[in-house]
Amino acid sequence: MKDLKLIKNEDTKIEFIEGGICAPCGFSASGLHAGVKTHNKDKKDLAVIVSSEICNTAAVYTKNKVQAAHIHVDKEHLSDGKAQAVIVNSGNANACAPNDKENAEKMCEIVAQNIGCKANDVLVASTGVIGQELNLKAIENATPKLFNNLEQSAQASDAAAHAIMTTDTVKKEHAIQFEIDGTQVHIGGIAKGSGMIHPNMGTMLCFITSDISITQEMLHEALLETVNVTFNRISVDGDTSTNDTCIVMANGLSNNTTIETKDNKYQIFVDALKTLCTQLAIEMASDGEGAKHLITCKVENASSEDDAEAIAKSVISSTLTKAAIFGYDANWGRVLCAMGYCGIDFEAEKVDVSFASKAGTVNVCKSGKGLDFDEELAEKILQEHDVEILINMNSGSASCTCWGCDITYDYIHINGDYRT
Amino acid sequence: MKDLKLIKNEDTKIEFIEGGICAPCGFSASGLHAGVKTHNKDKKDLAVIVSSEICNTAAVYTKNKVQAAHIHVDKEHLSDGKAQAVIVNSGNANACAPNDKENAEKMCEIVAQNIGCKANDVLVASTGVIGQELNLKAIENATPKLFNNLEQSAQASDAAAHAIMTTDTVKKEHAIQFEIDGTQVHIGGIAKGSGMIHPNMGTMLCFITSDISITQEMLHEALLETVNVTFNRISVDGDTSTNDTCIVMANGLSNNTTIETKDNKYQIFVDALKTLCTQLAIEMASDGEGAKHLITCKVENASSEDDAEAIAKSVISSTLTKAAIFGYDANWGRVLCAMGYCGIDFEAEKVDVSFASKAGTVNVCKSGKGLDFDEELAEKILQEHDVEILINMNSGSASCTCWGCDITYDYIHINGDYRT
Repeated sequence: MKDLKLIKNEDTKIEFIEGGICAPCGFSASGLHAGVKTHNKDKKDLAVIVSSEICNTAAVYTKNKVQAAHIHVDKEHLSDGKAQAVIVNSGNANACAPNDKENAEKMCEIVAQNIGCKANDVLVASTGVIGQELNLKAIENATPKLFNNLEQSAQASDAAAHAIMTTDTVKKEHAIQFEIDGTQVHIGGIAKGSGMIHPNMGTMLCFITSDISITQEMLHEALLETVNVTFNRISVDGDTSTNDTCIVMANGLSNNTTIETKDNKYQIFVDALKTLCTQLAIEMASDGEGAKHLITCKVENASSEDDAEAIAKSVISSTLTKAAIFGYDANWGRVLCAMGYCGIDFEAEKVDVSFASKAGTVNVCKSGKGLDFDEELAEKILQEHDVEILINMNSGSASCTCWGCDITYDYIHINGDYRT
Repeated sequence: MKDLKLIKNEDTKIEFIEGGICAPCGFSASGLHAGVKTHNKDKKDLAVIVSSEICNTAAVYTKNKVQAAHIHVDKEHLSDGKAQAVIVNSGNANACAPNDKENAEKMCEIVAQNIGCKANDVLVASTGVIGQELNLKAIENATPKLFNNLEQSAQASDAAAHAIMTTDTVKKEHAIQFEIDGTQVHIGGIAKGSGMIHPNMGTMLCFITSDISITQEMLHEALLETVNVTFNRISVDGDTSTNDTCIVMANGLSNNTTIETKDNKYQIFVDALKTLCTQLAIEMASDGEGAKHLITCKVENASSEDDAEAIAKSVISSTLTKAAIFGYDANWGRVLCAMGYCGIDFEAEKVDVSFASKAGTVNVCKSGKGLDFDEELAEKILQEHDVEILINMNSGSASCTCWGCDITYDYIHINGDYRT
């Protein structure tokens, strides 16, 4: 089974805690099976996240030109930078479908009526099959129970985390706490993402709650900075979804001095947000559809961070490299090949490549040429779930890490017949 | 089984004939098992193509920054635009490998000694595993037989066509004849390509012979024009190889008035070259590693041909769309999604999508929204080997067709363990 360790950040005393999106003060959640997913009544498909106070809120969306209805609605509702709740369904993308915009608006109205706020202060998100009409009736019918179950508890966060999953096999839910000027601050997050995942802005659904006090402008900046080095550095299949959305809500209940500029406190918050999102991003890559391996590509000593990122992304996105890892095959030629077509200039004659895992490290390429290496050891290394591809460019001092997964028979199986 | 029809071009009286690369006057060929491929002695791995006269010759190569040794050698040897022979091995890419440049040079010298020309007038190409040293000894030992078998015959072309194959399951070999000002002219071509195929210059190995009389400049222009609308419009797996090379040799033996400018005769030649290369390109896509379907994506009524091409390429390259076709699943949402992330601006609300094959046509999306459609018919349509995705942009008058294949369990199987 998958065996992911939590990232540790000893310097900033960021600590992982229980409670998910309900860990920050003032946030409650709920999740249940409403019937949008028709095939399995055990699968939750509707979630709501509610703050007791209005929140400064920021969001990033897919860069796909075809965007789900919820993105249009959210952009309107967030024009004032404020929100108090988010409602999310899985099982239907509510994109390119009859009445998609109207249904997204109605989902916001349902929440507004139930918690007593303006529909304009509610955000909405959907994930699932594209092009089929959303079963709004099922959502309406489930509403009383959804709000009845609303509570601030680890169980409620867990229910919401499950309700946003599609082909995900494990829930992605974390919370952290840290201090700003002696005040305890919390951030919680749930995410989903397994297929149609490729670095380009959001690349998934992710909902982050925090009780930090921060201006909307600084919150938005922090989100952009974080997404660029976390969710934008993973890839499952090179397909950028129409629905990707990442929302962060901050209700200010921790009562720290409000963060208004990019000062030291802002930096502490961003470090914490990156820690949380890196963890969620790695779990998303690791839970790629059908994946048997988490592939971490670390590029070091590159001329610039942009170069390092382009190279690492190209390697984790290469179908042939992914197939080689699936087959425990230390076929480093495919790594060099993927580096070569990523559009970055570099000297192939300087490149060293190694494969590593907890079973050891094997150097396979030195100065752009193949080394004789122990094939048995290489196979043993690649049999581990967590595999690293280490690339030394020997050309500078910049580095970047990206995360992906292998491509397997199960990926084909899952995606050969996703709709039925 | 695969059931590809030959393209017909009634206007220009281009006719497909037997003989492959030996169909044009003055070209002979040979192909055999030398021992570069160690696992199967029935698999040919060494080919040579020789012209009785020195040829005006043009070539295009991969845009991958990591380039095989043969590309460096060929660029040097072709600095004068002339060549008389090509030697090709399969089973080893001779890239990123010890002594790769030296071995590529030695292959040229072997040919020069045997046919009595300068090594500088010989080109070389390799395809196979990256990073392992080429077994030059095996090639040297096979030389006497290779040149003893050299002849101008359909059998010799067939042997060469087989000798350049790696994971290909069918040989790609064609010849055509057509008239220029009453003179009969011939073009023959062999190609290989099955994995690591993605539109970016050559995307494969292809060797084209012709007895046309044409200047090197016009030959090079004709090759660029042709490659852009044929081989650059196919994709198997998004991986652009380090070895892709397309070479065209013209020895002038048909005695037509030499083509020196972009006149009517040039146009006739380009039409013929495109006809030949389109056929080879389609067969390459159809024989994609593990493929069960040829996927043709036709984009019509786009704002520009560049837009149409970007959209069609994105659709045939989408892993999720490829998986859906494998599963006979008319999941058109993935088509719209792939269109949306290709970087082109368009109005999703204008897009119509249909799936078609010889079993019929089913319209699945109208004006950017899903239609109710006959799922049984759709499945029947997608069960055919040749499947078309038809996209009407309703935004202009430009069009483009690209070709790809589905992704299957066999692709994973083939590429999970390619080296051993």
